[in-house]
Amino acid sequence: MSTQIPKGFRLAVAEAAFKKAGRNDLALALSDFPAASAGVFTTNLFKAAPVLVGRGLLDERRFARAVLINSGQANACTGPEGIARCKESLALTASALGLEAADILPASTGVIGVQINLEAFAGAVPKLAQNLGKAGIEDFAAAIMTTDAFPKFCAERLDFSGKKVLLAGVAKGAGMICPNMATMLSAVFCDAEVRADDWRAMFKRTVDRSFNRVTVDDDTSTNDTLYGLANGASGAKVEGNALHKLEEALVRVLEDLAYKLVQDGEGATKVMHIRVRGAVSREDAEAAARTVGRSQLVKTAMYGRDANWGRVICALGRSGADFIPEEVSFSLCGVTLFKDGQPTDTNFDALLKDALEKRDLALDISLGGGPGEYLLLASDLGHEYVSLNADYRS
Amino acid sequence: MSTQIPKGFRLAVAEAAFKKAGRNDLALALSDFPAASAGVFTTNLFKAAPVLVGRGLLDERRFARAVLINSGQANACTGPEGIARCKESLALTASALGLEAADILPASTGVIGVQINLEAFAGAVPKLAQNLGKAGIEDFAAAIMTTDAFPKFCAERLDFSGKKVLLAGVAKGAGMICPNMATMLSAVFCDAEVRADDWRAMFKRTVDRSFNRVTVDDDTSTNDTLYGLANGASGAKVEGNALHKLEEALVRVLEDLAYKLVQDGEGATKVMHIRVRGAVSREDAEAAARTVGRSQLVKTAMYGRDANWGRVICALGRSGADFIPEEVSFSLCGVTLFKDGQPTDTNFDALLKDALEKRDLALDISLGGGPGEYLLLASDLGHEYVSLNADYRS
Repeated sequence: MSTQIPKGFRLAVAEAAFKKAGRNDLALALSDFPAASAGVFTTNLFKAAPVLVGRGLLDERRFARAVLINSGQANACTGPEGIARCKESLALTASALGLEAADILPASTGVIGVQINLEAFAGAVPKLAQNLGKAGIEDFAAAIMTTDAFPKFCAERLDFSGKKVLLAGVAKGAGMICPNMATMLSAVFCDAEVRADDWRAMFKRTVDRSFNRVTVDDDTSTNDTLYGLANGASGAKVEGNALHKLEEALVRVLEDLAYKLVQDGEGATKVMHIRVRGAVSREDAEAAARTVGRSQLVKTAMYGRDANWGRVICALGRSGADFIPEEVSFSLCGVTLFKDGQPTDTNFDALLKDALEKRDLALDISLGGGPGEYLLLASDLGHEYVSLNADYRS
Repeated sequence: MSTQIPKGFRLAVAEAAFKKAGRNDLALALSDFPAASAGVFTTNLFKAAPVLVGRGLLDERRFARAVLINSGQANACTGPEGIARCKESLALTASALGLEAADILPASTGVIGVQINLEAFAGAVPKLAQNLGKAGIEDFAAAIMTTDAFPKFCAERLDFSGKKVLLAGVAKGAGMICPNMATMLSAVFCDAEVRADDWRAMFKRTVDRSFNRVTVDDDTSTNDTLYGLANGASGAKVEGNALHKLEEALVRVLEDLAYKLVQDGEGATKVMHIRVRGAVSREDAEAAARTVGRSQLVKTAMYGRDANWGRVICALGRSGADFIPEEVSFSLCGVTLFKDGQPTDTNFDALLKDALEKRDLALDISLGGGPGEYLLLASDLGHEYVSLNADYRS
């Protein structure tokens, strides 16, 4: 039983062969009704053409009809020509669907620095139009993949005063194994009716609690994009107090997709759940968590199943977070290795042997008695990452 | 012909077997005269006992007689007991040499979390006293090594109005291959007479231009220490305008040692010379350089001899440095790969093939027309690093 599609949305995929033939690499999600639109983009100063175009469209309008994503070419570092071609691709698609180009939100992922292949686009657009309604969520997720090991999607069913609402999300990205920039793309489709301002505020907050909490190799690409469309086709109007319920569901969907990003790839063998508590502020907790999650020494230790508390402590100490060393404690998979500023005497190797074989490792850090907390997911660093990212040329 | 020792200094090494037997692991540099003292320490919030003790000694006095370094045990994360033992080790040494304990500046490197072995210390101190004057600079450098592949030392001869001055430096550290924290220790001995304030100011500035410009795996350990002693034994009084000449020599010595740190280790195959120019400020240039130098994707590309401009651009874009994308240019080993915001058409693979085989790779980045500049040395990331840092436990 495949994942249902929210009411009033029709999906289509097609093959344009932007990079390789033999797979779908163009995906379209079309809403029959204007949908409240939201978008969150990369903070990288180098923004791909589709990011600049999409951002502009969201600034101009609060509603959209479609999300169009291609894989194989990122249309990044392509200058004014790249922007023109992005707009042309939207015009082509709009023409085939009876829409305005400004109704369609674009995203791309793939090779950077190369102009988007408009001929390939033009050839595939009629197929997209023909295939509308024939693709499922999983097909959409597969068409936007680049180096992902598996398509990523999930959904949540909600009930608002008897009216059923479906929230479905797709994502792609797997930094650990990506020879390029590990672009993270995601799109969420919902059949609830939500005011555009509420929908946009929700996305801002939830991205921070989900995708921003994931670090694979600390790289934010030129193309990172998250889009959301809410079209009201379910008849459920979500406002006021009910917004909280929808937002929590959105967080769960995005957290699920974010977790899959970290998990993906032959390169990654571990998902570190780094939870920092007791910091003086959330910013400090985040700095501490990110420094630990980004540390090559910590990541290789986890890959090697080595309960190396010293590397975690060292990372905390240089994170910029403010704390008193004697108030710091750290436990790995529930075993306390470091307490009140000093290592414990625990014979932890025996205690942790089995736990360290598992994929999910809990790194719990306490910096003191403050209110600041942060949870970050991070992957390990092993040989596969090096092999996949070091391109030997003879 | 071994490196000369500055006048009025005598060196000694001994074996205490703090970790392994069969090698010297205790090193002493004694000045016959009180020497202007300087010290720069790790900024990590977790500071090893010798760092806390050394810092305290430098706060109390502007002169010292000796530097005492042990390898094998870092005396870090050892609490009040660790501090007490550090002071005891200095008292033991002072007693054997007829000094005051406060005359001796300590440093340690090695395993953390374990109390320093005072019995081993007590057993080795008499040997140190006996061996005074029998060790050369290279012996000293060898005794402070942990996972270094080779001892690191260098010297510069200067002439001040006919008086000869010698500046000799030693260092240890090799983050790439260090299973622990890649502690960086360094000591500089000079026979010039310098006012303590001038000497200390000089160290502050030069550390920033040398050791702080090196990133191997971005980790600042619990023990990082740089000491400097200037004892005036040459009879050359360096003050006023002459200070600049001494400082430039000190920079060259420290840069040489810093370069050796980056170069060291089976794990590292490349030294990236990342030079950022045209930033709005030095801080921005530094942020840009460090983000590039720390990027796993850039480091694996260099290891793989892959002219991957995209990864460098991506790192710049997320560095926090402020710039206009269309003003950014990047060249690798002298070949321009990215100009004014877009990739060049250059067939760079052929052009760069030979250059990428060399150890030293020049990454030249221009962010615009601003005054900010920064040069950073960074190593690559390859399989050896993972092997050496992932401790497989069966």
